[in-house]
Amino acid sequence: MNYYCYANGKILRRNEIKVGINDLVMLRGYGAFDFLRTYYGNHFRINDYLDRFANSAKGMNLKLPLKRKEITVVIESLLKKNKAPGKKDFGIRLLLTGGYSLDSFLPAVKPNLFILIEDLPHYPAWWSEKGVKVMVHEHSREMAQVKTTNYLTAIRLAEERRKNKAQDTLYCYDGQILETTRNNFFLFHGDTLVTAHDHVLPGITRDVVSRLAHKKFKLEVREVLEEELHWCSECFITGTTRGITPVVQIDNKKIGNGKPGKNTKELMKRFDEVVENECLYA
Amino acid sequence: MNYYCYANGKILRRNEIKVGINDLVMLRGYGAFDFLRTYYGNHFRINDYLDRFANSAKGMNLKLPLKRKEITVVIESLLKKNKAPGKKDFGIRLLLTGGYSLDSFLPAVKPNLFILIEDLPHYPAWWSEKGVKVMVHEHSREMAQVKTTNYLTAIRLAEERRKNKAQDTLYCYDGQILETTRNNFFLFHGDTLVTAHDHVLPGITRDVVSRLAHKKFKLEVREVLEEELHWCSECFITGTTRGITPVVQIDNKKIGNGKPGKNTKELMKRFDEVVENECLYA
Repeated sequence: MNYYCYANGKILRRNEIKVGINDLVMLRGYGAFDFLRTYYGNHFRINDYLDRFANSAKGMNLKLPLKRKEITVVIESLLKKNKAPGKKDFGIRLLLTGGYSLDSFLPAVKPNLFILIEDLPHYPAWWSEKGVKVMVHEHSREMAQVKTTNYLTAIRLAEERRKNKAQDTLYCYDGQILETTRNNFFLFHGDTLVTAHDHVLPGITRDVVSRLAHKKFKLEVREVLEEELHWCSECFITGTTRGITPVVQIDNKKIGNGKPGKNTKELMKRFDEVVENECLYA
Repeated sequence: MNYYCYANGKILRRNEIKVGINDLVMLRGYGAFDFLRTYYGNHFRINDYLDRFANSAKGMNLKLPLKRKEITVVIESLLKKNKAPGKKDFGIRLLLTGGYSLDSFLPAVKPNLFILIEDLPHYPAWWSEKGVKVMVHEHSREMAQVKTTNYLTAIRLAEERRKNKAQDTLYCYDGQILETTRNNFFLFHGDTLVTAHDHVLPGITRDVVSRLAHKKFKLEVREVLEEELHWCSECFITGTTRGITPVVQIDNKKIGNGKPGKNTKELMKRFDEVVENECLYA
């Protein structure tokens, strides 16, 4: 997946991009990040992603060297340049780093901006069809509202997930359900859909789903208690690469009857319709 | 400060070191880190630092490509190679990254190891002589026992420190005093010296000072309550680059009479003696 990418004003093959060791993203983990994707060859909700990216940059006191409109132009030209027969969809990774620091601690005046094109991760079809298992871990992400490059806990727990045949980790903190390593979390009590309000990433897919749900279900965006896992009827997670994925097991506890619930399936169907409407006929 | 450094088996000038964009330290902030220094041209407590670095690597499931003894050999040869007239002391930065990830999420089989030589930061003399001001911030570092590249909160608060003329930020969490952005924190109640036990980096300077203190003062390593700031007689911070630095103000509150305390000064003197004994006559 050595696609053409953007690095500080230059178009390079991905493996040609080399970063000097003084970049604060390497020395101090200081980088703003975002990730969007295409469906049917067209980007989805790009303005929402770019708003969030700009917001993350601001939250980290980093100055975006391009305007949102300019980033869109770069992305569209990269998608065109990387087009290949039978290859339609890509992931688009935005990375704004602390830049080349003079003292190995304070950000540079000029951050480095990378726009990377990559293959979307491939998740097995059964994840959507049969639902996944997640493991609870006591954790609340630092600066949860801002999308940074910090995935320390998520990655460190990969081995534990593998051993326990779990597909994701659910972060809970102080009795509250927050989010998973890279997804937002929802649960249903009957026809009432619930998701966390604070200390979670403002997910774009979460936003789409919340608007969809609003039409058909009662939506509560609030503190969600861990004990609600014991009496909820359905659970699912939402994210850019996975869309809506049903969750049928949390640690050793089955959710509902251990199969994706009908409300979740209804939302999955509606989400696919939104994507089709916005991207297939774009 | 374009010194000779080590990058995955090669000796390169620092600005010649280039890292591919797929390294997990850039995409996901996944890197183990450590920092030691020389005094009088000789490294100080190198085995303690290398133990901690190995421990951080282990905590992140990263395999160190060199044995501790081999790292020492590299460091000593770099110090020799970078020697210049009138230039004796260096900082030595160890960085072990997640390596070139295949899926932008899971660490590579082979991490990347960098050993970087750099100038020590220069702190104004008055910091030691008159003491510094620190600001309290509610935070507890993720994986505090492991030294990672994650300095998100530390860097983000730099502007706030500048505005408030503070030299550091003191992380407190849930009523407990933990540590500062890059230093351990101690306080005195009379002749009893107190420092936090949990959720802090196991500092090497902290360790040296604790052993020194043990001979002359009563040492308590335990939960330290934020309210103890109201009745403590002296405070100081410890770290590799700063040694012992007196703290004379926390937010708007003066500590003791607003000057470095006599017990702190006594420890500073003893710490200098340890350094002399171990490095000047090495």
